[in-house]
Amino acid sequence: MNHLMLEEIVRRALLEDLGWGDVSTESIVSESATASGVITAKAPGLVCGLPVAENVFHLLNPETRFLTEVAEGARVSVGQAIATVEGLTRVILGGERVALNFLQRMSGIATQTAELVEAVRPFGVRVVDTRKTTPGLRLLEKYAVRVGGGFNHRLGLDDGVLLKENHLRAAGGIAEAVTRVRARAGHMVVIEVEVTDLAEVQEALDCGADAILLDNMDRDMMRKAVSMIGGRAVVEASGGITAETVSDVARTGVDILSVGFLTHSYGSLDMSLNL
Amino acid sequence: MNHLMLEEIVRRALLEDLGWGDVSTESIVSESATASGVITAKAPGLVCGLPVAENVFHLLNPETRFLTEVAEGARVSVGQAIATVEGLTRVILGGERVALNFLQRMSGIATQTAELVEAVRPFGVRVVDTRKTTPGLRLLEKYAVRVGGGFNHRLGLDDGVLLKENHLRAAGGIAEAVTRVRARAGHMVVIEVEVTDLAEVQEALDCGADAILLDNMDRDMMRKAVSMIGGRAVVEASGGITAETVSDVARTGVDILSVGFLTHSYGSLDMSLNL
Amino acid sequence: MNHLMLEEIVRRALLEDLGWGDVSTESIVSESATASGVITAKAPGLVCGLPVAENVFHLLNPETRFLTEVAEGARVSVGQAIATVEGLTRVILGGERVALNFLQRMSGIATQTAELVEAVRPFGVRVVDTRKTTPGLRLLEKYAVRVGGGFNHRLGLDDGVLLKENHLRAAGGIAEAVTRVRARAGHMVVIEVEVTDLAEVQEALDCGADAILLDNMDRDMMRKAVSMIGGRAVVEASGGITAETVSDVARTGVDILSVGFLTHSYGSLDMSLNL
Amino acid sequence: MNHLMLEEIVRRALLEDLGWGDVSTESIVSESATASGVITAKAPGLVCGLPVAENVFHLLNPETRFLTEVAEGARVSVGQAIATVEGLTRVILGGERVALNFLQRMSGIATQTAELVEAVRPFGVRVVDTRKTTPGLRLLEKYAVRVGGGFNHRLGLDDGVLLKENHLRAAGGIAEAVTRVRARAGHMVVIEVEVTDLAEVQEALDCGADAILLDNMDRDMMRKAVSMIGGRAVVEASGGITAETVSDVARTGVDILSVGFLTHSYGSLDMSLNL
Amino acid sequence: MNHLMLEEIVRRALLEDLGWGDVSTESIVSESATASGVITAKAPGLVCGLPVAENVFHLLNPETRFLTEVAEGARVSVGQAIATVEGLTRVILGGERVALNFLQRMSGIATQTAELVEAVRPFGVRVVDTRKTTPGLRLLEKYAVRVGGGFNHRLGLDDGVLLKENHLRAAGGIAEAVTRVRARAGHMVVIEVEVTDLAEVQEALDCGADAILLDNMDRDMMRKAVSMIGGRAVVEASGGITAETVSDVARTGVDILSVGFLTHSYGSLDMSLNL
Amino acid sequence: MNHLMLEEIVRRALLEDLGWGDVSTESIVSESATASGVITAKAPGLVCGLPVAENVFHLLNPETRFLTEVAEGARVSVGQAIATVEGLTRVILGGERVALNFLQRMSGIATQTAELVEAVRPFGVRVVDTRKTTPGLRLLEKYAVRVGGGFNHRLGLDDGVLLKENHLRAAGGIAEAVTRVRARAGHMVVIEVEVTDLAEVQEALDCGADAILLDNMDRDMMRKAVSMIGGRAVVEASGGITAETVSDVARTGVDILSVGFLTHSYGSLDMSLNL
Repeated sequence: MNHLMLEEIVRRALLEDLGWGDVSTESIVSESATASGVITAKAPGLVCGLPVAENVFHLLNPETRFLTEVAEGARVSVGQAIATVEGLTRVILGGERVALNFLQRMSGIATQTAELVEAVRPFGVRVVDTRKTTPGLRLLEKYAVRVGGGFNHRLGLDDGVLLKENHLRAAGGIAEAVTRVRARAGHMVVIEVEVTDLAEVQEALDCGADAILLDNMDRDMMRKAVSMIGGRAVVEASGGITAETVSDVARTGVDILSVGFLTHSYGSLDMSLNL
Repeated sequence: MNHLMLEEIVRRALLEDLGWGDVSTESIVSESATASGVITAKAPGLVCGLPVAENVFHLLNPETRFLTEVAEGARVSVGQAIATVEGLTRVILGGERVALNFLQRMSGIATQTAELVEAVRPFGVRVVDTRKTTPGLRLLEKYAVRVGGGFNHRLGLDDGVLLKENHLRAAGGIAEAVTRVRARAGHMVVIEVEVTDLAEVQEALDCGADAILLDNMDRDMMRKAVSMIGGRAVVEASGGITAETVSDVARTGVDILSVGFLTHSYGSLDMSLNL
Repeated sequence: MNHLMLEEIVRRALLEDLGWGDVSTESIVSESATASGVITAKAPGLVCGLPVAENVFHLLNPETRFLTEVAEGARVSVGQAIATVEGLTRVILGGERVALNFLQRMSGIATQTAELVEAVRPFGVRVVDTRKTTPGLRLLEKYAVRVGGGFNHRLGLDDGVLLKENHLRAAGGIAEAVTRVRARAGHMVVIEVEVTDLAEVQEALDCGADAILLDNMDRDMMRKAVSMIGGRAVVEASGGITAETVSDVARTGVDILSVGFLTHSYGSLDMSLNL
Repeated sequence: MNHLMLEEIVRRALLEDLGWGDVSTESIVSESATASGVITAKAPGLVCGLPVAENVFHLLNPETRFLTEVAEGARVSVGQAIATVEGLTRVILGGERVALNFLQRMSGIATQTAELVEAVRPFGVRVVDTRKTTPGLRLLEKYAVRVGGGFNHRLGLDDGVLLKENHLRAAGGIAEAVTRVRARAGHMVVIEVEVTDLAEVQEALDCGADAILLDNMDRDMMRKAVSMIGGRAVVEASGGITAETVSDVARTGVDILSVGFLTHSYGSLDMSLNL
Repeated sequence: MNHLMLEEIVRRALLEDLGWGDVSTESIVSESATASGVITAKAPGLVCGLPVAENVFHLLNPETRFLTEVAEGARVSVGQAIATVEGLTRVILGGERVALNFLQRMSGIATQTAELVEAVRPFGVRVVDTRKTTPGLRLLEKYAVRVGGGFNHRLGLDDGVLLKENHLRAAGGIAEAVTRVRARAGHMVVIEVEVTDLAEVQEALDCGADAILLDNMDRDMMRKAVSMIGGRAVVEASGGITAETVSDVARTGVDILSVGFLTHSYGSLDMSLNL
Repeated sequence: MNHLMLEEIVRRALLEDLGWGDVSTESIVSESATASGVITAKAPGLVCGLPVAENVFHLLNPETRFLTEVAEGARVSVGQAIATVEGLTRVILGGERVALNFLQRMSGIATQTAELVEAVRPFGVRVVDTRKTTPGLRLLEKYAVRVGGGFNHRLGLDDGVLLKENHLRAAGGIAEAVTRVRARAGHMVVIEVEVTDLAEVQEALDCGADAILLDNMDRDMMRKAVSMIGGRAVVEASGGITAETVSDVARTGVDILSVGFLTHSYGSLDMSLNL
């Protein structure tokens, strides 16, 4: 994780919440008062985002001590201490909400990812994320997916080629689209093609796609696609995957399951900070 | 909604997703090709974020036409067209994901808010948000709450005083805390105090708090608090409010229900963009 | 005062003055030469901005020592030492002008504010600022008003509602305007209405304005307005207040005097820095 | 005036004042309502900053029409119309304060400068500004000095060399300082030396300074200095120049009078905007 | 090419060159004067950067007309017109140097790339760039390589894996390094390994590297490496490639030649702009 | 060199190269692993940019130790150690390319400048740069010219006046142009006029230009121009100066040679960093 990019995200979040300053705390607490606060889990799950929370307090005052009680990615239970913050009371109270806003979201994503990863473990399948991330927070959300045991798909539109329905329509077919990409993209670019039926699977194979994304196929068709492809391309499945169906999809033999809701519809893991 | 701030958020989101450029589309689609795409709902709910989506396409090219098919805040059903985008194919495909990432989240928040608002309508109670928003997107999330029929609590730490448990502990009591705030804050600052039992309610009343936040009280205690306060302060309730319990809490006579999950744990409303 | 925002303001000021670098000093002083400089008052007044001046030198080199000789807000006489700066000569000379530019302006505002505050002290009236602040420096100027013993009015357009003549005209009257605001604004928003005669005072009272701003009234009308309002709203007076008239206005019984010239027409307090 | 730099300053000022948005106006005025507002002088003086005010409204909405009623630099009397703004009511009311904050300060500077320029006109002397400008606004303040008929001294520390007392002390004398500068600075850099007595004038002349700044000399010494220099260097006087003394100083024969208070202690020219 | 990123680069370049404003032009040319200028080649080569030059003038004034006389990537001879700029004289003269600074460098890169591409054309080998680009201008330099007929290697450290000598040393060998990468990187990441002898080629093949970079090998060893690899991985050669040796290296059968000097040591293509 | 501006340039360069993070290194090297790397010259030349390289590693981690083995501006031979970096392996490998990209370019410029400076040393002539610098890197390139023994011409368009052919044409002649500039520019602004024949030299002299730029004259005309000017203005020559012709031009008696290729067409000095 690029620390300079992280710091910009955290700085923006602090400016957003603090605005002109924390009127409540500044009115009540003297500039030099110090305190110690504990961040505690109020729900079970995977902790993710400790370096981000630490950065929140360090940006407000580099001398704040942030002591982790568990490791990044650890599973915690209700009431378990996650980290202790020691320093100026104004810094602890002024950074509390922003630190928790990051920690709770990232832990929510990591926790949800870990559940899917666990479910597909018997099948040797990878769970991957999508570009359906929160605008401005992709760095942190893709990191949280990794902490949860998942893998990252493309980071952005510049990082690999995924030819989806709209592209294929614009190009006039799979072969035409892949040919045009090969004529322009360098050798570090992986080319993946989204297909919806077995004829398209064959087309994608014929033009040498590096990866094939089976979009919204039923499991039966998936199995046939996996067998047609026979290891000549990475096979990814997406569409309609839920916690309930994930193992059934994994059983079809695909290599990768991509799951949009990992980052577009997650819950925050409940936590609190108490002095 | 401050348009200059919105534009900065959208610009950042586009830079995040596009990076060096959209390799897939730029390889396949000529610079001058044009197209028309329709954004369609794939789940029922309230549409929110149309001006944001419009801004996404306009930043990429100010000549793109963004035609809304429904009004901001309208309820849509599965398959219903939300908006049409006309312009350069590269712009439509390059901005698609970012536009949807905004629209789907904001619509998710507005939809969820509208459900709670509907549930408490008979009791004349307001649903308000919290500062548990996504870092960097508070402007948009607080706006989505309003579109869903809710109201905004403080925008940030500089905008009103909310004395919570940690502040009261640091100050040594409610009276002491409120006195210190009054000695510093101007007349445009509302002072709200968080309380957990009836003795604290009385203390908050005695020192003239403008608003009192009943935190995690059971409904019986809430009713007593409302009666003690008797209109001398705005009464807000928070803690453990869910879609199931919301009407029961509303029935206690409080003025306001603040709900963290409006912005910390929402689902995206499913949508797609097709050429 | 939000330290992150302060640092951005100071960084911008240094980039503005230093440009490509300080040719004079870099030509003359070696990179490792050190010195000590004293900031001295050349006119009597209140010192304000010490943390800002410190930040100037720290941004240029975090190891510079900035030792205050008087406390923030202290009254100094001609020739009195205000602070000592120890460190690289290049840093002291390179930051001198920017540090003084901040200190002198902020001290000028604090000094002028303190005079008014002193004048109205017998009447228990508060002196408050306005939004007529220098673009880009509102954070510092509103802070200087507080250091001078004054209070802050709204921080910006998002922080409280003030319905002025133009708004009332656009809305079609006081009642209509207040009603529309109530239907949208949350409970942390104070609503103030500007009025110019007693009929408007009554209208503002009738629709429950939290505060009433008596704009450019003569003292006789002010007294009548105060008596009509009878404590049901905060009473603010503005318009034509000068150092000469301020006690007479304060005597009318209003709660607050808002004074634009605190921040739109102040003099710098003269100071110098000598090695 | 660099328009790109101007736009950054204006954007920052708008973000500062608008914050999350203009609650008053957005509550009261519909998104599509239009209006026309007139900016009027409430005190006599020189108008300066019209392009800045125009930029304020254009940044909020590029379709706003800003019609100037007088030219930049024109002298206006009380009640005279300065400019008319036509467009969305929200834009006019949302930008009003920021536009006036710029216009009033810049007009204040131009007006004050024009007075001094007028006073020294018979003597063929130039009035110049200093680096004692408001942090972040130097571009605009130096422009206002020019509009008022004055000239600019250095724009920043990178733009010309001015060896002041602290530099001379650090270098160990005038000759040593000038020598070091000549060994490093290019031919586009003017070298000016600050002197306090006639011996220093001679020293500065001997080492070929391009300009000599007579600092805080009495008029008698100034006259002698002018005569010693005899046209071999530009002669600048500074220190203790006021509106009262300016012609007497000008009479000494110096070429240039530099006046710090032009930008460090000015009053705003009173104006208003009415719908 | 991401237009938003381009615009940021151009804006920065203009602020760098214009600073407070163009004193020469603003002193001489009135605000409303218009002119037409022609950009002409003063040396033969490939033109590259027309959209960048256009952006320079458009940022200064969106109404400036930029008319290209040749297409992007066209070969021009001495004296040939490249583009015409029509608009405000101030805009043309103020943007001239920045526009040429971009155009000349980008054309220099494209021209140099095209020579190499031409030289290796008979061998079906691709010329690719490296990360040895000018800090801050990678977007434009990698684009210029493509305009010259070359291809892009990785865009940055986040975009594909290249395990070089330092990595292999840190990991303790090729196999260990590749294994660790596979355990973390997603399926869109290509893994390339840098090798210096045939034993390492074998090792890289054995662990399934997607691409193998033959670093500084002599041509004989290169041929053996190509034959060992036998199409199982993309083969890239680098090190010591010059305009003279490039065809000999190409003849060895490698797929790709990466050439650092394309972007680290190029000459500008001479051009001028005349009114 | 303004350190704050330097840091912004370095930060941008790191964000450009690292993007979301260094996948190669982060996959292979643990977060706490440390190492030591040596930067070595692979070609002879002047070293320039050590403070920039240090800043690269410090921005990634302030605890990295950067130990210079030679002084800034020292001449190194092939294989000579330039600096040692000690710290986290991730920081050394993540910053390597960016640090070298700066160092190699700046050393290339300093080396090339030193060659010209050496060639003209016997004639007491200064070598100066131009505004033909790489967009965004002018600060560093002008500094490298100074390290190589050259001098800087204008830093930007706001820093001195250079009236070139296009300006003279727009103004209608040299006298007219100089007059207009004098009427607006302050006394810290040097005025230089570009001339192409002896009549123009006379014209420039007549209107008191501070410096005269002989553009593309042959050496014979240059000698005549120098003699005409006779010390009344600084004489600069430019156009067609190469390493071969430079001493012959210097011999004509001009004061200054300005050389565009110092910054528009340089080679990088080859270096490597090895763990």
